Amino acid sequence: MTLILSNDDVEKLLSVNDCIDVLEKAYLELADGTGVARTRSDSIVAAKSPDTLYSLKSMDGVIPGLGVSAVRIDSDIVTYPNEGGKVRRVKVPSAPGARYVGLVLLFSCETGEPLAIFPDGVMQRIRVGATNGLGIKYLAREDSKSVGIIGSGWQAGTQLMAACAMRDIDKIRCFSPNKTNCEAFSKEMSETLGLEVKPVESAEDAINGVDIVMCATSSIDPIFFKNSVKPGMHLSSIKTFEIHPSAIERADVVVVHNPARKMRFLGKGVQMPELQGDENRGDINKIDFGNFPTLPQLIAGETAARSTPEQVTCFLNNIGLGYQFAAAGSIVYAKAKKQGLGRELPTDWFTEDVHP
Amino acid sequence: MTLILSNDDVEKLLSVNDCIDVLEKAYLELADGTGVARTRSDSIVAAKSPDTLYSLKSMDGVIPGLGVSAVRIDSDIVTYPNEGGKVRRVKVPSAPGARYVGLVLLFSCETGEPLAIFPDGVMQRIRVGATNGLGIKYLAREDSKSVGIIGSGWQAGTQLMAACAMRDIDKIRCFSPNKTNCEAFSKEMSETLGLEVKPVESAEDAINGVDIVMCATSSIDPIFFKNSVKPGMHLSSIKTFEIHPSAIERADVVVVHNPARKMRFLGKGVQMPELQGDENRGDINKIDFGNFPTLPQLIAGETAARSTPEQVTCFLNNIGLGYQFAAAGSIVYAKAKKQGLGRELPTDWFTEDVHP
Repeated sequence: MTLILSNDDVEKLLSVNDCIDVLEKAYLELADGTGVARTRSDSIVAAKSPDTLYSLKSMDGVIPGLGVSAVRIDSDIVTYPNEGGKVRRVKVPSAPGARYVGLVLLFSCETGEPLAIFPDGVMQRIRVGATNGLGIKYLAREDSKSVGIIGSGWQAGTQLMAACAMRDIDKIRCFSPNKTNCEAFSKEMSETLGLEVKPVESAEDAINGVDIVMCATSSIDPIFFKNSVKPGMHLSSIKTFEIHPSAIERADVVVVHNPARKMRFLGKGVQMPELQGDENRGDINKIDFGNFPTLPQLIAGETAARSTPEQVTCFLNNIGLGYQFAAAGSIVYAKAKKQGLGRELPTDWFTEDVHP
Repeated sequence: MTLILSNDDVEKLLSVNDCIDVLEKAYLELADGTGVARTRSDSIVAAKSPDTLYSLKSMDGVIPGLGVSAVRIDSDIVTYPNEGGKVRRVKVPSAPGARYVGLVLLFSCETGEPLAIFPDGVMQRIRVGATNGLGIKYLAREDSKSVGIIGSGWQAGTQLMAACAMRDIDKIRCFSPNKTNCEAFSKEMSETLGLEVKPVESAEDAINGVDIVMCATSSIDPIFFKNSVKPGMHLSSIKTFEIHPSAIERADVVVVHNPARKMRFLGKGVQMPELQGDENRGDINKIDFGNFPTLPQLIAGETAARSTPEQVTCFLNNIGLGYQFAAAGSIVYAKAKKQGLGRELPTDWFTEDVHP
């Protein structure tokens, strides 16, 4: 049987800690060359509405040691609203019932069979948190106590959960340009973490003097700059553009998630604000992520971590991998089978008797 | 609702002629730059059994004019048996019930929603035939009457159907090293086409003096050579390696399906025979398909077709496109809805209320 799981199932079955553990193991296999990650491609065409795009994103990964492979697909209507002077990339829920469309297909790499199909949203959030958590584990000072986070959206929660799982954090400050969201998020996360998350009035107030700076926004413009970098800091980002190139240059140790750039296939007339470099954006499109060591290499001990408490470290979660969905999917699938969660559909519906 | 369709449904809903028509239309949009094709990637790792690989293949396409996009995925166990001195790439049906795993996910590029999920096998065969049919339509002599086909497997049938749809064919000869298959195939196709398909004893017997040569094998070694080329011939191939480079060089007009090479992501220890060049294989790995005009350009009139009856033309269906599955999928989906075919599942199972 092939399992159809929901985001609720994934939420029940996958903790940030589980995800950190399985990713750490899977990344060793990626560093070793046994596992394979086919990096993200975005096929983008102009939609009928003005200033709107349709994007078909896919990414694949195979992890022989875990016996699985996965394809993650997003079929998105995308717009670029300008809020508070920052351009954000926002998906519009346009599927029936005002819903988003993101799917993970999990396969066995031993039999090829489709094991499970589930939406990507909850896992997406957990694996991003877990990945930046691994950045903290391998780069931040052991005695890191305080976190300043910029952003109070969907991604920010798992970022804080992962930070707290990796270090003995006792102080968290949060800034977001949307004050209402920032306060609601801080209240909710204070309860979740059993630790006060304090909403503050400016990015500077959130960042000033903290051990770990976490950027967790949907901004396509830089939101963290060189003048905020202090000795001993660990900088963490979930998007390509959040940390200004001059701040990245200031760091002593910079590690990226993956050296690849997105493969973009653009239809005629497509205008993407993130592809238009300007002064404010600090030519960030020109940064070559292929020049930095990767998180898998860091975990495998193939590249140096922090060597002194004064060094500034920086982890750029620059691109996601289908490989992460395979790793996290292996946990979710095993637990769902054990607990009898999910809808079972005949595997024959998703396989065939003719040579494809 | 999201439709789950079977290969039987696709067989009922999609004719070779339908597929030729919709591909012709879709290719105009690809040539024009409005449509987008993310070309094939193969993520390949060594399997536990010796001389066996696991391959996760994916390809994407978006066709705004048809309102659809698609991802095609194959999750394959692959081996390389040597039969009659030719190495073939063969998939092993290892999923439960001894089945293969190939899927197409069809989306709306207007709402993003998943419209349908179905196995790829029947459509794969029809779209390959239809594509080579378009090669014949735009390149072969108008008065082509005879076809020689090498190969009698799964792909060969739609090749002949497409040839007969495009030209007034009155003579077909077939050769395959497997005599039993060749005879059974010839008998079956004679009935399907209402025209004698004659099994012959050698490739030379099949090819000699025909107007159109169709290679439709699973060989990864060349099976058609320069000395068989005659003036006025149209050469047609469904794989990268079937036609020897010297025969390609002899052709006056060469058109490929797509200029891209497969993107290969290979795990440690993977050995693929098709990547090992040797003299017999004529350095075919070194052919740069990016140097040839494409079928979409040919259909759009952007590159020259045959200019005299004596010219030799050659169409190399060198790589498949997810774009083809989007095009053919649009027909299958529309007809299935109209005829009430397929299993309906709630679209909510494949969408989500969280921003992915």
